[in-house]
Amino acid sequence: MKFETLSFQDGTLRLLDQRLLPQEVGYFEARTYKDVKQAIADMVVRGAPAIGAAAAFGVYLAAKEYGGLGRAEFLAKLKEACRELETARPTAANLAWAVRRLEKLAESRSYAPVGAVVEELAQEAQNIAREDLEVNRAIARFGNEVVPPGSTILTHCNTGALATVGGGTALGVIREAHDSGKGIKVYVDETRPRLQGASLTAFELVEAGIPCTLIADSVAATLIRDDKIDLVLVGADRIASNGDTANKVGTFMLSELAGRFGVPFYVVAPVSTIDLSIPDGSHIVIEERPPEEVTHIRGVRIAPEGVAVYNPAFDVTPHVNINGIITERGIIRPHYSKTITDLLDSLAR
Amino acid sequence: MKFETLSFQDGTLRLLDQRLLPQEVGYFEARTYKDVKQAIADMVVRGAPAIGAAAAFGVYLAAKEYGGLGRAEFLAKLKEACRELETARPTAANLAWAVRRLEKLAESRSYAPVGAVVEELAQEAQNIAREDLEVNRAIARFGNEVVPPGSTILTHCNTGALATVGGGTALGVIREAHDSGKGIKVYVDETRPRLQGASLTAFELVEAGIPCTLIADSVAATLIRDDKIDLVLVGADRIASNGDTANKVGTFMLSELAGRFGVPFYVVAPVSTIDLSIPDGSHIVIEERPPEEVTHIRGVRIAPEGVAVYNPAFDVTPHVNINGIITERGIIRPHYSKTITDLLDSLAR
Repeated sequence: MKFETLSFQDGTLRLLDQRLLPQEVGYFEARTYKDVKQAIADMVVRGAPAIGAAAAFGVYLAAKEYGGLGRAEFLAKLKEACRELETARPTAANLAWAVRRLEKLAESRSYAPVGAVVEELAQEAQNIAREDLEVNRAIARFGNEVVPPGSTILTHCNTGALATVGGGTALGVIREAHDSGKGIKVYVDETRPRLQGASLTAFELVEAGIPCTLIADSVAATLIRDDKIDLVLVGADRIASNGDTANKVGTFMLSELAGRFGVPFYVVAPVSTIDLSIPDGSHIVIEERPPEEVTHIRGVRIAPEGVAVYNPAFDVTPHVNINGIITERGIIRPHYSKTITDLLDSLAR
Repeated sequence: MKFETLSFQDGTLRLLDQRLLPQEVGYFEARTYKDVKQAIADMVVRGAPAIGAAAAFGVYLAAKEYGGLGRAEFLAKLKEACRELETARPTAANLAWAVRRLEKLAESRSYAPVGAVVEELAQEAQNIAREDLEVNRAIARFGNEVVPPGSTILTHCNTGALATVGGGTALGVIREAHDSGKGIKVYVDETRPRLQGASLTAFELVEAGIPCTLIADSVAATLIRDDKIDLVLVGADRIASNGDTANKVGTFMLSELAGRFGVPFYVVAPVSTIDLSIPDGSHIVIEERPPEEVTHIRGVRIAPEGVAVYNPAFDVTPHVNINGIITERGIIRPHYSKTITDLLDSLAR
């Protein structure tokens, strides 16, 4: 990527404004945690891992803002800001994960001077961003194991350098497979309503010189049936303890078709996307976004006035439809209730 | 409908320009058969039955153009024009059906004066348009039998007054169910890439006061899974002898999901959509349309330069996924190889 999705310098979080791509390369500068919240809610920055990193810098910006307060008041205000940041978007697990990581750090340093805590939070936000780079590299290496040479991969939404701090999750695996000379080809769902596949994934693949073909989301079903797809790779926004996975709307449909026609279906995500606090997908809050995302495209109205719209941003794929979850710690296989718990237990030790 | 999809007066075929809806109501005037061909190819007029009727007037316009020629030359030129009209779009069976009906009439009158034949062709084109009105009414009555009171119906693409000369096929059934006080609700797939669901079906339903909700195509799968849909009604562009049905891309995906979760799935089409010359769906030519339909929306580029696109306009739903085919002669049920042949035999007698 020629463009940096997310960087932090001189008190400013600089975000590539993904609403403008692929026509325009512009940046959004967030100087307060409220700016960060707005950038996440408006999808200037999107993709679960990138949202997590952006939110971490948001917590730091709040800490800086309240750095002049006394210890107790500082912590109270910081917690308020954390709750606010968490509500920017409800589905991505990485958002709450990153916010709480910084929040816990602040709490654990309650006897340190406020100024020192603020500096530690700056460092921790940078750690999260830097770790994401390494996590992406590890995911890509593990994921490459499931990609057969010469295969055709179907992917949905954007899970690349624009969705993460590093090279991507599902798209990171695709890059790795390409770079390792496997001669892969990619079909990209355009991913209505926000067209992240057409505008972002196709953009990344064309830039990287990876052979890709763009399709309307409805076309995927016949490609899968007609044996044109060897592998489906998607990202994740929240993974429940039993492996049920929330991801961009349309993922469930792909998983059903892949299962029906015997095409391997993998979820690719960092461990931070796993939410052990919920037993299954029925507990995942599915964000509903504004009707204008469906009735208008780039400001042009395509549907009549007065029509009702149902616009969920995500859907939940049941764990039985998932052949494996590719993480930076390796590939988790069924039965997920056991394998996921085992993995997270081993990390906690 | 306040607007007329198709009308013929004073030597001019007047077509509601469906590329402009719902933002603008404009008309396209075809004065030659080449104009008609262009209008069909560019999708000024679309929907299998409406294409058939438009093409019939196209044949008449060709006949009028060549009306000054001698008998043999007239017929040769007319046949050339028929072949040209047939190629405007390859998938809709009604196009060839209508063209050949007029062509056969002209051939059968080879001893009549050319001027008289031209007048007969004008009459026959009007017959096709008028018959479509009656066919639509009969389809609506038969179709209403399968609609449970208070049900929620999912539909795809546009199969309404804009796709036919009358009230529509699948959407005609929906209108009938609504008008008969069944208290139905409708989910409308937006139907990428050309958005006929968002721009045309939603427009018709809002005008008719039928409760409807617009969704991205990918949302249908979870609605079906989560028991929000009681019935799926779609149109057809060509039906093979065994019931395999070509319809707008995305239909196959809906049929798979409906089958998986036990939701009745019906095709609604006039008998003229059935093509007895092909044994099954593998013989249906699937039209591929220009990449710009996917890379641009209403002239705005949404995908990067240089990306490849696969843009099939239709897909084939296998007959095993179809609970019934609703026609103007009644509802055809499996096993279609027998029931379809029986029906067409009875009509030929």
